[in-house]
Amino acid sequence: MRISELAGSSGVPVATIKYYLREGILQPGESRGATQADYGDAHVRRLRLIRSLVDLAGLPIARIKTVLELIDHPGDDLFETLGTAIAALPPYAPERVEYPRAEAAVRRLGWTYDGGFAATAQLDAALAAVEDAGIPLTDARLDAYGSALHHLAEFDVGEMPAPSSDGAAAAIEYAVLGTALYEPVVVGLRRLAHQDVAARLLRG
Amino acid sequence: MRISELAGSSGVPVATIKYYLREGILQPGESRGATQADYGDAHVRRLRLIRSLVDLAGLPIARIKTVLELIDHPGDDLFETLGTAIAALPPYAPERVEYPRAEAAVRRLGWTYDGGFAATAQLDAALAAVEDAGIPLTDARLDAYGSALHHLAEFDVGEMPAPSSDGAAAAIEYAVLGTALYEPVVVGLRRLAHQDVAARLLRG
Repeated sequence: MRISELAGSSGVPVATIKYYLREGILQPGESRGATQADYGDAHVRRLRLIRSLVDLAGLPIARIKTVLELIDHPGDDLFETLGTAIAALPPYAPERVEYPRAEAAVRRLGWTYDGGFAATAQLDAALAAVEDAGIPLTDARLDAYGSALHHLAEFDVGEMPAPSSDGAAAAIEYAVLGTALYEPVVVGLRRLAHQDVAARLLRG
Repeated sequence: MRISELAGSSGVPVATIKYYLREGILQPGESRGATQADYGDAHVRRLRLIRSLVDLAGLPIARIKTVLELIDHPGDDLFETLGTAIAALPPYAPERVEYPRAEAAVRRLGWTYDGGFAATAQLDAALAAVEDAGIPLTDARLDAYGSALHHLAEFDVGEMPAPSSDGAAAAIEYAVLGTALYEPVVVGLRRLAHQDVAARLLRG
């Protein structure tokens, strides 16, 4: 299809598609002479992914490049690729050498600890904030949260598309969108769960 | 203590304290003549709460006023007061008449449904985003997330300070800070739980 048809079927304006082509995040169409190119289903899928990352996850173009580069060239170690892709998502916590709060929490839960995981820095910053506010994470709360969230993570990872002959693209896309777009779902459901429990307690 | 001593013991600069006094979010000190006032422990506690809401939760002054007004005058219905206080926290979803996605999810889980809860609008917007991205919330995922997050909410509400002769201030403060500051903890722990499950699956 032509670029105008690609715009029509994806809902993304031609000027925006040209911008993505210039930025190198959308693969060029097949050339049909000097001023025309032909686009296919792969372009429609890629545009949909870019729009999700831009509009829904709020990712800047540079971060989107990182994610797409990993999808196109995932390398041999899927675990490391997934970690690098998720690290492209906000929040961007300051890198430090040690994360004592996060390390203590993760070790208590018996989970894989790695100071190089971006989420380790994020968790450490979040734990410093609750400490500053006078509501530090107690062991009892950590145990309750840890077991509930591990249960949820088992479900999420169980649903991850297996790497296939097409490569790991579907798995990486699932991990990135599932992380960025499901966090607001988790937060919203947690608030509504609080309201449900509080309603039963306070209103009987 | 004098305002300079209040600044010293709270770590908040005098100019900022004066700004909070002008905005009416910090109660005035007891007058000691035309140019001096005396501040006490209640001022230290209030400043600490304001700083948590400003620095850690990122709340604008107008929203902080709402929260503090509820803490000072909680009314008779604690459930309604808590809901109004939590609604002062971001994200601020657009108000609509119907929230079909959130309503279907909450009803399936058998939780209290109320279209007036701010979190209903937030959840509906989050569910629209995952739908747009092509990874809609399935019933199986909803059931897994719902049960894990309800478990977590039972813990949270169980730790809420009971309303006492001093009023409901401690309960409201706990609910507001526990919501705003523990959401990044939940998100960080979820990402690390994903990495733990993925490490076991992919690295054995």
